[in-house]
Amino acid sequence: MLDHTHDAATLSWVGSANDPATDFPLQNLPFCSFRSQGTLEPWRIGVGIGDQILDLTGWGLTDMNALMARSSVERRALRHRLFDTLKAGSPQVDLVPQSGAEYTLPCRIGDYTDFYTGIHHARAVGKLFRPDNPLLPNYQWLPIGYHGRSSSIVVSGTPLRRPKGQVKPPDADQPVFKPSARLDCELELGLFVGPGNALGEPFSIDEADEHAFGLTLLNDWSARDIQPWEYQPLGPFLAKNFGTTISPWIVTMEALAPFRIPFTRPMEDPQPLPHLDSPAHRANASFDIGLEVWLKTPAMPEPVRLSRSNLRHAYWSLAQMLTHHASNGCNLQPGDLLGTGTISGPQPDEAGSLLELTAGGKQPITLPNGETRIFLLDGDQLGLRASAEKPGYRRIGFGACDGVILPAR
Amino acid sequence: MLDHTHDAATLSWVGSANDPATDFPLQNLPFCSFRSQGTLEPWRIGVGIGDQILDLTGWGLTDMNALMARSSVERRALRHRLFDTLKAGSPQVDLVPQSGAEYTLPCRIGDYTDFYTGIHHARAVGKLFRPDNPLLPNYQWLPIGYHGRSSSIVVSGTPLRRPKGQVKPPDADQPVFKPSARLDCELELGLFVGPGNALGEPFSIDEADEHAFGLTLLNDWSARDIQPWEYQPLGPFLAKNFGTTISPWIVTMEALAPFRIPFTRPMEDPQPLPHLDSPAHRANASFDIGLEVWLKTPAMPEPVRLSRSNLRHAYWSLAQMLTHHASNGCNLQPGDLLGTGTISGPQPDEAGSLLELTAGGKQPITLPNGETRIFLLDGDQLGLRASAEKPGYRRIGFGACDGVILPAR
Repeated sequence: MLDHTHDAATLSWVGSANDPATDFPLQNLPFCSFRSQGTLEPWRIGVGIGDQILDLTGWGLTDMNALMARSSVERRALRHRLFDTLKAGSPQVDLVPQSGAEYTLPCRIGDYTDFYTGIHHARAVGKLFRPDNPLLPNYQWLPIGYHGRSSSIVVSGTPLRRPKGQVKPPDADQPVFKPSARLDCELELGLFVGPGNALGEPFSIDEADEHAFGLTLLNDWSARDIQPWEYQPLGPFLAKNFGTTISPWIVTMEALAPFRIPFTRPMEDPQPLPHLDSPAHRANASFDIGLEVWLKTPAMPEPVRLSRSNLRHAYWSLAQMLTHHASNGCNLQPGDLLGTGTISGPQPDEAGSLLELTAGGKQPITLPNGETRIFLLDGDQLGLRASAEKPGYRRIGFGACDGVILPAR
Repeated sequence: MLDHTHDAATLSWVGSANDPATDFPLQNLPFCSFRSQGTLEPWRIGVGIGDQILDLTGWGLTDMNALMARSSVERRALRHRLFDTLKAGSPQVDLVPQSGAEYTLPCRIGDYTDFYTGIHHARAVGKLFRPDNPLLPNYQWLPIGYHGRSSSIVVSGTPLRRPKGQVKPPDADQPVFKPSARLDCELELGLFVGPGNALGEPFSIDEADEHAFGLTLLNDWSARDIQPWEYQPLGPFLAKNFGTTISPWIVTMEALAPFRIPFTRPMEDPQPLPHLDSPAHRANASFDIGLEVWLKTPAMPEPVRLSRSNLRHAYWSLAQMLTHHASNGCNLQPGDLLGTGTISGPQPDEAGSLLELTAGGKQPITLPNGETRIFLLDGDQLGLRASAEKPGYRRIGFGACDGVILPAR
């Protein structure tokens, strides 16, 4: 639903929010959990505006999960109040500069589920793991997903220790336990659940938006040499759960409303079963959100963009992920996180993982300074970025999702 | 480590605790979270003794997860204090009858992981899903596990709604969305994590016991018709996450110390890699704990035992589950729950699931009243029981883990 808070003509009294390049114009208003750098102050709920943060403590908002549990009507009312407070002409209030802030996870993440909705990624990776059978028959009938690890989700800027694990070289008789030599990233968005559903009580596809609070960037770090040995028959485990990095900011579904696009599927593909389909859903369940992967190395301090993609390439919508997840009665809760899976585009240079960009490790990437990479080396910093852009609307950015690799212990 | 709290000769001033058939003699002292039935009182930490509960609120213990974070030395000190308080001769204090109590989950479960350590189950189920390849090559090298859903873990006595889901009959062109017709149980124990480890900091196999707090009964309800269609390539998801039932009681590792047995593996099998093996581990890492599956139906109010097994049949130890889980740096936290996987014995009548007991649904079970069952019908009540018994020691029981099936919504 579009309203006056999406009007690009309205400026903020915060000067930096009016910069066309900012991630956080008045029309975005993303949430975070922050405090002053280097202090042990309690974490506070904040809203990003330009290069500043509006502290919501004085608004009586101290529990992000409680805020996320609010209905879409209440969420919209809060957005309107934030918009009014920060728009040009309103009385100025104290702000906290982002340059002096540090962040933690924006909310308590009870359960984390990772989906696999990027069909180009699924095909490319499937080809490497199962050359004869890249895309399994269920892929086009249900949004494949699995449970991830909540405890090891960290906020952007947290260094990541290279994991050790069991690796079985194809020609060896038995596995060895050693540091991963095929450490990879995965370019994803994460959907934060708003209001939950009770155990045993599914909801319909047309009710799904009510349960969607907002999006964050998500890097699903992956150890590609641990994964093939461990993943059958119960799925990825230690190849993934050593760490997942998210951006500090939750961009609300309200901020993203102008970037909704129709959700369609090639006519020749199986169409979704009735509980995952509806006219309203087809009309606007996809999103035009640009995604990028960036790399910085110790010898190359100027980051280089490795890849560009877009959420519109997802084969399953956010609403379908939510509806499918709860379709058996599974209870979703405010603050739960649903990863989209790696969103690769159809072109080779639109891939969201090094595994794909290097054709399974066979074609090294050459960086501008002459270095090459197959997978990540110690000291490398991997960053994800995202933004929604459309003529007539302000650019909605997602902030940074960065992590640097520490050597194995 | 055995001490005076394991001495079978010491009695309690709580008469029911001295009954040889009780689950909760003075030597057990399991923890729960309880309140008076039908009230909205805050949940309190309690300790089971005979048919009574000792309320620990007056001891300043109000947060079970904080209690679980204590070191093994502190845990033992608390056990000694509880033992002294409840042993015969000590002054009597107020108790709460279990008959007037209701229970909730004993702690906040941050992450739930389910393993697959029952090799007889893995072989039997593998044969049904992959006739040519029942036991995958990785099985004997690492404890296979996957992340489960925390939000849908419920305490014994909570009814379970039959899930709907996508099912693809082998001869059909496409899946249908319908109530599961192959609803099954899985006989497991759950290990509650005590002190955690920091992200990026694994621990050794000889340090694993420090991280083990205690055990609970765990029924990993499974929809066998949803599972085969969805589980590749990322593992079980909606076939499992509609509900997991645990018993209200956590039996501490200290209470189970007398029932430790050597952990050995057939000489002809691969032996564990060094990080999952040690002389101390081999000496006593397994447990002799008897496990049972019971069924009650609307037409048969007297429950019948379907199966008996024992935790000793697990192919991987609790310590190996913990060590493997953290071996890549994954951070375990106090209150995390690790399921063992279905612990079936080597004999057909020792199976821990209906899938196995009915040979994949091909051989119905005949109940004493003439009814038959392949999988669970609406109104059926499935119960798990466990106890550790050994000459010279008091029987250590686990309480009830029961759930009744409600019709699909």
